[in-house]
Amino acid sequence: MNFRSDNTAPVSPEIIAALTSVNDMPVAAYGEDPWSKRLDETFGEVFERDVRVFTVASGTAANSIAIASATPPWGGVICHREAHISCDECGAPEFYSGGAKLVLVEGPSAKMSAATLKEAVARNTRDIHSIVPAAVSISQATERGAVYAPAEIAALGEVARASKIAFHVDGARFANAVAALGCTPAGITWRGGVDLLAFGATKNGAMAAEAIICFDLDRAEEIARRRKRGGHLFCKGRYPAAQLLAYLKDSLWLKLAARANTLAQQLGEAAAPFLSVPVETNQVFIKPGAAALAKLRSDGADFYDWGEVGAGEARLVVSWNQDEADVKRLCALLRSLQ
Amino acid sequence: MNFRSDNTAPVSPEIIAALTSVNDMPVAAYGEDPWSKRLDETFGEVFERDVRVFTVASGTAANSIAIASATPPWGGVICHREAHISCDECGAPEFYSGGAKLVLVEGPSAKMSAATLKEAVARNTRDIHSIVPAAVSISQATERGAVYAPAEIAALGEVARASKIAFHVDGARFANAVAALGCTPAGITWRGGVDLLAFGATKNGAMAAEAIICFDLDRAEEIARRRKRGGHLFCKGRYPAAQLLAYLKDSLWLKLAARANTLAQQLGEAAAPFLSVPVETNQVFIKPGAAALAKLRSDGADFYDWGEVGAGEARLVVSWNQDEADVKRLCALLRSLQ
Amino acid sequence: MNFRSDNTAPVSPEIIAALTSVNDMPVAAYGEDPWSKRLDETFGEVFERDVRVFTVASGTAANSIAIASATPPWGGVICHREAHISCDECGAPEFYSGGAKLVLVEGPSAKMSAATLKEAVARNTRDIHSIVPAAVSISQATERGAVYAPAEIAALGEVARASKIAFHVDGARFANAVAALGCTPAGITWRGGVDLLAFGATKNGAMAAEAIICFDLDRAEEIARRRKRGGHLFCKGRYPAAQLLAYLKDSLWLKLAARANTLAQQLGEAAAPFLSVPVETNQVFIKPGAAALAKLRSDGADFYDWGEVGAGEARLVVSWNQDEADVKRLCALLRSLQ
Amino acid sequence: MNFRSDNTAPVSPEIIAALTSVNDMPVAAYGEDPWSKRLDETFGEVFERDVRVFTVASGTAANSIAIASATPPWGGVICHREAHISCDECGAPEFYSGGAKLVLVEGPSAKMSAATLKEAVARNTRDIHSIVPAAVSISQATERGAVYAPAEIAALGEVARASKIAFHVDGARFANAVAALGCTPAGITWRGGVDLLAFGATKNGAMAAEAIICFDLDRAEEIARRRKRGGHLFCKGRYPAAQLLAYLKDSLWLKLAARANTLAQQLGEAAAPFLSVPVETNQVFIKPGAAALAKLRSDGADFYDWGEVGAGEARLVVSWNQDEADVKRLCALLRSLQ
Repeated sequence: MNFRSDNTAPVSPEIIAALTSVNDMPVAAYGEDPWSKRLDETFGEVFERDVRVFTVASGTAANSIAIASATPPWGGVICHREAHISCDECGAPEFYSGGAKLVLVEGPSAKMSAATLKEAVARNTRDIHSIVPAAVSISQATERGAVYAPAEIAALGEVARASKIAFHVDGARFANAVAALGCTPAGITWRGGVDLLAFGATKNGAMAAEAIICFDLDRAEEIARRRKRGGHLFCKGRYPAAQLLAYLKDSLWLKLAARANTLAQQLGEAAAPFLSVPVETNQVFIKPGAAALAKLRSDGADFYDWGEVGAGEARLVVSWNQDEADVKRLCALLRSLQ
Repeated sequence: MNFRSDNTAPVSPEIIAALTSVNDMPVAAYGEDPWSKRLDETFGEVFERDVRVFTVASGTAANSIAIASATPPWGGVICHREAHISCDECGAPEFYSGGAKLVLVEGPSAKMSAATLKEAVARNTRDIHSIVPAAVSISQATERGAVYAPAEIAALGEVARASKIAFHVDGARFANAVAALGCTPAGITWRGGVDLLAFGATKNGAMAAEAIICFDLDRAEEIARRRKRGGHLFCKGRYPAAQLLAYLKDSLWLKLAARANTLAQQLGEAAAPFLSVPVETNQVFIKPGAAALAKLRSDGADFYDWGEVGAGEARLVVSWNQDEADVKRLCALLRSLQ
Repeated sequence: MNFRSDNTAPVSPEIIAALTSVNDMPVAAYGEDPWSKRLDETFGEVFERDVRVFTVASGTAANSIAIASATPPWGGVICHREAHISCDECGAPEFYSGGAKLVLVEGPSAKMSAATLKEAVARNTRDIHSIVPAAVSISQATERGAVYAPAEIAALGEVARASKIAFHVDGARFANAVAALGCTPAGITWRGGVDLLAFGATKNGAMAAEAIICFDLDRAEEIARRRKRGGHLFCKGRYPAAQLLAYLKDSLWLKLAARANTLAQQLGEAAAPFLSVPVETNQVFIKPGAAALAKLRSDGADFYDWGEVGAGEARLVVSWNQDEADVKRLCALLRSLQ
Repeated sequence: MNFRSDNTAPVSPEIIAALTSVNDMPVAAYGEDPWSKRLDETFGEVFERDVRVFTVASGTAANSIAIASATPPWGGVICHREAHISCDECGAPEFYSGGAKLVLVEGPSAKMSAATLKEAVARNTRDIHSIVPAAVSISQATERGAVYAPAEIAALGEVARASKIAFHVDGARFANAVAALGCTPAGITWRGGVDLLAFGATKNGAMAAEAIICFDLDRAEEIARRRKRGGHLFCKGRYPAAQLLAYLKDSLWLKLAARANTLAQQLGEAAAPFLSVPVETNQVFIKPGAAALAKLRSDGADFYDWGEVGAGEARLVVSWNQDEADVKRLCALLRSLQ
């Protein structure tokens, strides 16, 4: 019963098939192939506006290249203390940006409120001796599985616009957020003021397909250059493009995410007394104590400890292809702890 | 008749099959899967010694991360004026290294001789005001399709060792070089003093599989960090690993490369009067004049101009799956020019 | 009555005289002059061991170059939330280090305890996804005027050594700390495990004379390179060297600092009921409320607000040449507030 | 007889006096003092237009910060192969710019012609794989003592404007160029399209006073940030400001430079048969052979060898305060070689 992470899952059959389907002839390299050239238009339809799409090899690359294009080296990027860009990317945003600074803020469920953002901008806007707030970065869904509703995005976007800072979203689990909110992709991105989205597909059924969705077209040329210099302009661009096209086709991305979200809800109900935070997407955080976690493991469940060392907290992640029987078994185990 | 580049070719059936074969269960992410864990050993067998293998998304990433691990920011990296790292990576080595300087040297067929290297080291070894020679980087095969024989590698390696600089090889077409030389991979790498190899598979039948082969194990930790920060630590590591394992299995890599080399020889014979440089691998450089090139194109051949603008020179690249009929047709066209 | 900062003060007569005294003949540039060459030896005597001394133009440069030489780009530098390197250098440490991350910790009087350091190292030592703790940086005296006693330095040094991280001290007001502690310079530096000291003279009577004192001689070459690349290798090295030699001669540095400390004590006594933190060096922090601060200003005192906006807190800094009459007047004003 | 470099000379009495004259009271730090605040206006008068002036500690800093503000990290900076920024700054431009690339061109007397610039822009303007030409950098006077006349500057400026690249001038010896040309400072800077000038005073009688003169005011904020991050915002700004004000006052800068130029002409006449290049400013390049150079040295002349190792070439530099008797003696020695 593997609930460690959605990145342990294999690739969905539709996406594997897409790779094969584009494999039969020579095509231009470096994104000049027919599938790569369709990305802007296809994402444009999904997001209901003109966009530029840049495929890269990882979420870390998508976040870091986007952020580097949104801040000068002397800028500050306001993000949550638990943000992936702060905790899990080995300083990649600092590397790509030439040394910009992540300004950490707090908030429940790893979310940042508009008020917190406003306060952080104000506190860090000083003089030549301090950095300059340049961007805000949030995760949708967050590292604690929470989502920002359209109104929350809009409120953050309003602060960003008023502060003249860019708005970046780490969407490693963007599909899970859209599926959970039942909103349009536009509703939680550019309509709310988002400039740059790191759109993740890998955790939700792709092989290696992440993309920077650029809503602020003025930044496109810079992103193209930073991607190339980072070594993320794929030589055989057709393969990541084909993955993304298959991922979007017939709403596959939302179907896979919705399934994982639904199963996570079942786990959440079974673990109701132990939940650290409400279950909103495909991640479930429980805090039943160290002994209970040990028991779950001895009964065959595999997952990560979470939070402070020794806190007796854990994270359970449901993947796109999670076995329903495993979910049922884990639900039973969780109920038995009560 | 597409002879533009070997990166326009699709993926070999064996490698597509490998992707499918590892796609059936959850496995650990970030290189802790069974296939990724087999890379060191498998490459170790091919190279006849202990190595560390780091998969990345592109040759640019492989080169730049390797080079950054071989030079301080104030170092000089000696390479040929036509080197891919100088001409075609948009400054990626400078980016990854924090601003190291490429020191350009000359030589026929885009090759650097040991004497040239020695002279470049001497000329650039001065005082606190100048950079410090830190590495030499060559391409095997070169950007002009030439190869370095084991003795040439050893001679360069000797200068490098005497100069206390690192030795990096851009092996985007390493397979073509090994196939052409009929040597062992060890014979043109660590046995001759090479510390770091960017091992390319993408141009020779893979989808997106490049690897840094690290012979100097002391650099491995730094490479791991730089790879992560560059966003090149694949989340689902099994897929690039599976590509590389299939690529090496039963010498597939050498078979594909040998086939391309052989067909290129046929082109070279047909174009004998126009050859800019001798044909040694799968690239053919011809200089029949602008009118002749226009004629080839009007007869259906597709390829890049090469060299100085207006020089009437062109590059013909044979891919792993190049249609033999196309080669025959192009041979005929080339002969008809004479 | 200017109590804004010790950097508003002019240059001491001894140091002005030193500049003139070295101004009469051609000498070698770039630190090869007789005075620059005496720096290692003279500082070696003051610090009772072999050291390497690198003059630079500012404290920001001294800190950043030293720190960059103590951490890889993927390293973490543990410092106090109020540290100058975090708040007042516009991201210079991130710039010089190629994107290392400052890890912020808390502590009263802007001091970091050994326990806090140990905890921060442990919390940030994880896996390939996180940065690697590489250095600790403290300020001596701190941004709140406090000092670290030799035993405190030794305790921090022990954690640093056990954690295999470097130990950097921002000594912009190092003289004030030594004068206040009555210790030897060695006692709060290398004897306690300090590897790198940014030794400030500018705030205490020099014109522009800051130096990196390198106790870990293995780092000297790297510092030399980083200084040159940062544009801090003075062409006419005799002038910063002469300043530092005059500053150390006959303990001028300690006399100037002791005088400022003593006058600050007088202010501290006068402001006893309002002190935010105890007065240990030449800085006095008071929190008498916004109205009281307004009154001080209307009575002619000039100083900075401090701490959170609207907190009614202020910083009073005594300079090396502070007019004693001004101190007396300010003492009277402070007493009148009670 | 020291003819090694103008950076071996002491500080002119007027400038030493200026340092003392501003040393008597507390003033605001970080460039908010009265003298720093006068810089923009005073330089504005000299250059006959609105400018922004940024003092820094060295010519390397002035060049690198200016260049970094004129190129993205993926930009190319076209300069002469012998340029100081390429040969003598240990990669500082690459460091400050985040890895931009210097594109080297040739030309007699270390000068670049407009045609050469145009060709270099064209050759380096390609596609996503190559860097983007972003700036041209010349030295005025050049590393071979030559000057660019107003018409030559204008021709370069026209190519720069047409190519949409920035125009930077390394003016380490700008005074010598102006004095030699008898032109206005405006005539060889912004009137000819120059955007950024590194204005040097140190080599011509100052202690440590270099400044970036920014003609393109849109770049000022970025330069201010880069200066701060580089540690070049002087805490006690009055001292570099006072140096520069004294340097400009009553045309001191031009008087000192003119004197040196005139003495260099005398050397040039004495060495006429051996001159490598014509003498235009205060540097004299001679190529009398190794034996002759050895003789000059044994007769008491001190200078650097120049050019290729073993070429028998040397550089003689006349400083602002060069002893006329020394010049006469050296002239006699030079004549005796013929």
